[in-house]
Amino acid sequence: MNNFAHPPGTFEILKRASGSFARLGRLWTAHGVVETPAFLPVGSKGAVKTVSPAELKMLGVQMILSNTYHLVIRPGIEIIESAGGLHKFMGWDGPILTDSGGYQIFSLAKLVKIRDGGVEFASHIDGKRFFIGPAECMEIQRRLGSDIVMCFDECLPYPCDREYACNSVERTLAWALICKKTPLAQGQLVFGIVQGGEYKDLRIRCASRLKEIGFDGYAIGGVSVGEPEELMIPAIENSVQELPYERPRYLMGVGKRHQIIQAVERGVDLFDCVMPTRYARNGSAFTSNGSYHVKAGEYKADTRPVEEGCGCYACQHFSRAYIRHLLNIDEVLGIRLLTIHNIHWYMRFMEEVRNAIKNDSLELLKEKLQREE
Amino acid sequence: MNNFAHPPGTFEILKRASGSFARLGRLWTAHGVVETPAFLPVGSKGAVKTVSPAELKMLGVQMILSNTYHLVIRPGIEIIESAGGLHKFMGWDGPILTDSGGYQIFSLAKLVKIRDGGVEFASHIDGKRFFIGPAECMEIQRRLGSDIVMCFDECLPYPCDREYACNSVERTLAWALICKKTPLAQGQLVFGIVQGGEYKDLRIRCASRLKEIGFDGYAIGGVSVGEPEELMIPAIENSVQELPYERPRYLMGVGKRHQIIQAVERGVDLFDCVMPTRYARNGSAFTSNGSYHVKAGEYKADTRPVEEGCGCYACQHFSRAYIRHLLNIDEVLGIRLLTIHNIHWYMRFMEEVRNAIKNDSLELLKEKLQREE
Repeated sequence: MNNFAHPPGTFEILKRASGSFARLGRLWTAHGVVETPAFLPVGSKGAVKTVSPAELKMLGVQMILSNTYHLVIRPGIEIIESAGGLHKFMGWDGPILTDSGGYQIFSLAKLVKIRDGGVEFASHIDGKRFFIGPAECMEIQRRLGSDIVMCFDECLPYPCDREYACNSVERTLAWALICKKTPLAQGQLVFGIVQGGEYKDLRIRCASRLKEIGFDGYAIGGVSVGEPEELMIPAIENSVQELPYERPRYLMGVGKRHQIIQAVERGVDLFDCVMPTRYARNGSAFTSNGSYHVKAGEYKADTRPVEEGCGCYACQHFSRAYIRHLLNIDEVLGIRLLTIHNIHWYMRFMEEVRNAIKNDSLELLKEKLQREE
Repeated sequence: MNNFAHPPGTFEILKRASGSFARLGRLWTAHGVVETPAFLPVGSKGAVKTVSPAELKMLGVQMILSNTYHLVIRPGIEIIESAGGLHKFMGWDGPILTDSGGYQIFSLAKLVKIRDGGVEFASHIDGKRFFIGPAECMEIQRRLGSDIVMCFDECLPYPCDREYACNSVERTLAWALICKKTPLAQGQLVFGIVQGGEYKDLRIRCASRLKEIGFDGYAIGGVSVGEPEELMIPAIENSVQELPYERPRYLMGVGKRHQIIQAVERGVDLFDCVMPTRYARNGSAFTSNGSYHVKAGEYKADTRPVEEGCGCYACQHFSRAYIRHLLNIDEVLGIRLLTIHNIHWYMRFMEEVRNAIKNDSLELLKEKLQREE
């Protein structure tokens, strides 16, 4: 382990896998280093639901994702800025990636109007109107002080007709150029987002144009938006093939273990997904053999931990019967314990992935996962 | 500090205050020692809401209260017993006091019938019928494995006419005798509960009769049940005066700082109250200058901790603005952080009380509290 601090944006590729495009890397940010491939738990509103920053550290979380859209709506950027930025506001001193809000504006807010200059929308909470364009979005993320700033983009739904997709990609690219030109604070990195839906030529066009503009990293957006799973891998491949090898790639909103490993094999380095936290809120735990509902009656007297052999705080101290009881009485400690387990499970999986790249055993890991699932 | 472990039930009175009946003590239980006067946070349903056992330890919590009634209803005693008892079930290895459920049956459940042999009631959750008498109640607490077992009693409401109170006290005493005779596990302590409402002679009769029966400790019940505050102190005095000096006294369900200190001066050693946890759920924080609503608009950009100068995890890492934001978005981490602060605040206060007894400065502490409030 090299403890010498590199400038933010340094991306070291430590090892290339044999037989796939997977790589083991190390991304340096202003708030620390991220060993890749890495998974980012989601704290859209400035908190990873139910868990504290101290717990995230203990779980080995390297970077979290937060969300421009949610933070603009509540508590508002001024408040976070006056607290000294998002890190200080939420008490997390590790790296933070902020999504630009493009996805949320198009999926969550009441959209008022898309213009070339940006998007007018109404808050899904109180109907308050906002206008965000690429420059505004960069300015917001500058004020948040995130380590990785995402370009403002239009996230295409699935399905989406070719003509709309074509125009949308051009708009996303025009916005990316503005994002690139908008000044940020020192040490903040900017990632471009490849869109293009299911259309190969649009993905290629978008990725190669973003590469020309030049970003610190590149995200693959518009996947996991309801499309059939067999469209996901081509979308990743079509996006990645045009991206510069030496920069980190981030697959947004994904996801499941087999999806992550397939994306890793295609050269993806970063992932985020609400699954560990959302599943916990639904009372579900991840295990090597898939997820299960801890609330199910069959666990009511089950003194085993949520997952046998797991070393997380929840599994070391509590039984399925106890967590089931907490879920049954709507006691949030139950959700919190499941969240801890699920995040730990994701962190452990990513460590397995990194070790498999290191040891050239990715195929073995895939076989093991297939046996388990 | 004497590290030599004494048998459960040993109550050392280390210091008597000058000028009041306050005493500094040390109560030994099967799961550790409790420095008194002590405050027990409430985990009625087998969890102190939102916080983990590890956090309770860090906060300096010595003993917690749990509740027979709630645990009988959910998850059911068999499940806790099959997990190895309540300590193992909930992952708390410190002392646990279990209330007998008398209060809850009379206040929360749908009461079906009070008979001399016990009480028939219907669960407030699903209407399921239960019968609990004194022997059943002891047996339940034996199976829970609590360190301090409370006698089954009838908690009198306020107001309550004299005739009813008189009959009820006789029933509570008859039940206490059965409780005393019902076998428990080795190391479990049993506390009798003084009832009698606002009637001095009934309090005296109940206390002196309980003393004759002989318990490991004595509780004062039926206070803080809606009576005017000026009736609380006489009820405590009338109960305490007949109780054996050398055994611990426990004031149930109290409460506020000035009430605790007045009771301490009258020789009370143990307290429990939902205030720290319930206030947190309502978004309120305790401070030296009273409690306040962290959700109030005036704190939206307040970068100060919940209480300036406080050393708790919440105050060391988070601002009012952040906790207010969490409360506003219904993120339970906000309630959790306030719970941590409020419990810490109570633990710190009890430490002040113990130090004041040690240093003969209880009057000074009272004056300080009066200035603050």
